[in-house]
Amino acid sequence: MIVKELLKYVFMTENYLTLPSLGGHRDPAVRENMEEAKELLKYVFMTENYLTLPVSGTGTAGMETAMFNVVEPGDKVLVCVNGYFGERMCDMAQRCGGELIRLDTEWGHAVDPARVEQALKADKVKVVFVVHAATSTGVLQPLVEISRLAHEHGALMMVDTVTSLGGCPVKVDEWELDVVHSATQKCVGCPPGMAPITFSPRAEKVLGARKTKVQSFYLDMSIVQQYWGQERFYHHTAPISMCYALREALRLLYEEGLEARWERHALNSRALMAGLQAMGLQAFAQEGYRLAQLNAVRVPEGIVDANVRGRLLDEYSIEIGSGFGVLNGQIWRIGLMGYNSTARTVYVFLSALEAVLQAEGFALSPGEAVAAAREVYG
Amino acid sequence: MIVKELLKYVFMTENYLTLPSLGGHRDPAVRENMEEAKELLKYVFMTENYLTLPVSGTGTAGMETAMFNVVEPGDKVLVCVNGYFGERMCDMAQRCGGELIRLDTEWGHAVDPARVEQALKADKVKVVFVVHAATSTGVLQPLVEISRLAHEHGALMMVDTVTSLGGCPVKVDEWELDVVHSATQKCVGCPPGMAPITFSPRAEKVLGARKTKVQSFYLDMSIVQQYWGQERFYHHTAPISMCYALREALRLLYEEGLEARWERHALNSRALMAGLQAMGLQAFAQEGYRLAQLNAVRVPEGIVDANVRGRLLDEYSIEIGSGFGVLNGQIWRIGLMGYNSTARTVYVFLSALEAVLQAEGFALSPGEAVAAAREVYG
Repeated sequence: MIVKELLKYVFMTENYLTLPSLGGHRDPAVRENMEEAKELLKYVFMTENYLTLPVSGTGTAGMETAMFNVVEPGDKVLVCVNGYFGERMCDMAQRCGGELIRLDTEWGHAVDPARVEQALKADKVKVVFVVHAATSTGVLQPLVEISRLAHEHGALMMVDTVTSLGGCPVKVDEWELDVVHSATQKCVGCPPGMAPITFSPRAEKVLGARKTKVQSFYLDMSIVQQYWGQERFYHHTAPISMCYALREALRLLYEEGLEARWERHALNSRALMAGLQAMGLQAFAQEGYRLAQLNAVRVPEGIVDANVRGRLLDEYSIEIGSGFGVLNGQIWRIGLMGYNSTARTVYVFLSALEAVLQAEGFALSPGEAVAAAREVYG
Repeated sequence: MIVKELLKYVFMTENYLTLPSLGGHRDPAVRENMEEAKELLKYVFMTENYLTLPVSGTGTAGMETAMFNVVEPGDKVLVCVNGYFGERMCDMAQRCGGELIRLDTEWGHAVDPARVEQALKADKVKVVFVVHAATSTGVLQPLVEISRLAHEHGALMMVDTVTSLGGCPVKVDEWELDVVHSATQKCVGCPPGMAPITFSPRAEKVLGARKTKVQSFYLDMSIVQQYWGQERFYHHTAPISMCYALREALRLLYEEGLEARWERHALNSRALMAGLQAMGLQAFAQEGYRLAQLNAVRVPEGIVDANVRGRLLDEYSIEIGSGFGVLNGQIWRIGLMGYNSTARTVYVFLSALEAVLQAEGFALSPGEAVAAAREVYG
């Protein structure tokens, strides 16, 4: 656009990222940035879905946008619960008047498609909800089979990819996912504050056939999409600086390439887990279903969870997650996400944890963790 | 906190604004920033209300938070409509099951308290909603009398201060306002993306007596307040960089002082309006009820609105607002908000508008506008 070109002239630069410092949300330069963010979101979601944009709220707003736009009062909603966010989605399904069918799986385990099939046979379900990457447990949920089953029974497939997007494959079109939301601050590598979301043409049809209004004006896609679309119809004032941050994070992601990024996350996780296991710690999530970006391990017996996390933060400025809900005090959740998934992070963290655990009286052989990680890097 | 102190040591500085570049939302340094933002919000809202915080969404999310938390299905809601956002609040009141009583006033005019009283006598109303500073028309709504009437009839007083907060007096406690929301990007001088909100103890009582769940999980204050409160109960991931931006914007506001800031806005508006009138333009809003931060003038006859705005943007990088809804093509809305309310802005804008209007064939005496503005500055 003209503003960007003029700035390049003034600065005497060809830098791609030459932008006005501030613009109103109706400024053409800002609009262009928003268009680019939408296009890059299609890349990271691996989709051609027209209705792909970032919602102006955090991941929780994205969840609510997904549920509220699809579900009308009385609709049957099958929510698979194997961690904290499935639990939360049950709450949201009920707040918008959905009839909740809840399928519980032990935390730390993946959802079994056979049980989803049973539930789909027993009830005429409008939408199946699954969490792709369970932040609370470190479990990666396979989606293809559940998606196939949902469609076979005339239901939409709704997926939470808050922790997966950008860190491992999220193939919206290939896996035929219908409503997929995420967040910006995990593997996309942007500050928190927006929630990417995408709706398949199948989902758009369901939205178009609603008999009642979406119960939130702020999250009503029928209006939001006209703001983000060519209509430019005023709905709210987009969080401009967040839009710029998102576009830039996505550009970096695009330059790295999705597959290279997935491999990077996988490699650093293998190194981290090798180090942790050498230290004597045990993985929490079910084998074969472990996330690379969120590594959950059990707190060893005799060790006080909060002491270790407190020391890591105070002495090394490293923050790791505690267990949510029923897992409180029982596991640590170690994130290696986006720009933070590096060998450097792995080495620094293993060294710090080793020092802290030793100080807390845990028996280990100093140096073995880092050595094990180095072995993985080869 | 320790992190900030260590950073000061490393940087060998006593700078107040020494912060880690990034922190998780549970990081103590980030928590401290959030606490400070809350305290500074109390200052700008002129309130002692405990329940004062920024909602993690834009102003529209703030509106919805206000309405959704107060209104339960069947509650009677009196919405005063004298511009675009009153209209919008009617929609929100209905989406949460409220029984809407709508009081229309001609756009560009203030709401008459006598008519509010009539409506309050006719129905048992739970809450009265008024827009304090109408962005769509440039009208400043007096609140004290309507607030008194609302309480006399046992109703809560709910006010939209999106455009007023930080630009003119918003005396929440003195005026006994009960539910007041705003936005960050207007006179607070921060990027868009959060919505400050405050609830009086009277409003808190109403929230506590709800029989039904708030219909949005994301905006449910009973949970949101536990996240922002000492409980630190996980609800969502706050938009960290926005929290820092807000705290910094509020600090600048605090350093300037509220009264100095109001005076600055008033002075620059007087200069701008003197210039515009010297140019032959007419104010749109009712006399005696005109905003300083949003100056609405009529598009002169024979002049095409879009041409003028297009030229201002392309040739001078100045964006002014068009008329909303029924006022489309009829008025211009000229913002002088926050850091943008300066004599410099006034001079540059008057000079640019004069050039554009002349090029568009409008008859004026060159130089008179700037001279009239200079007279005001003395």
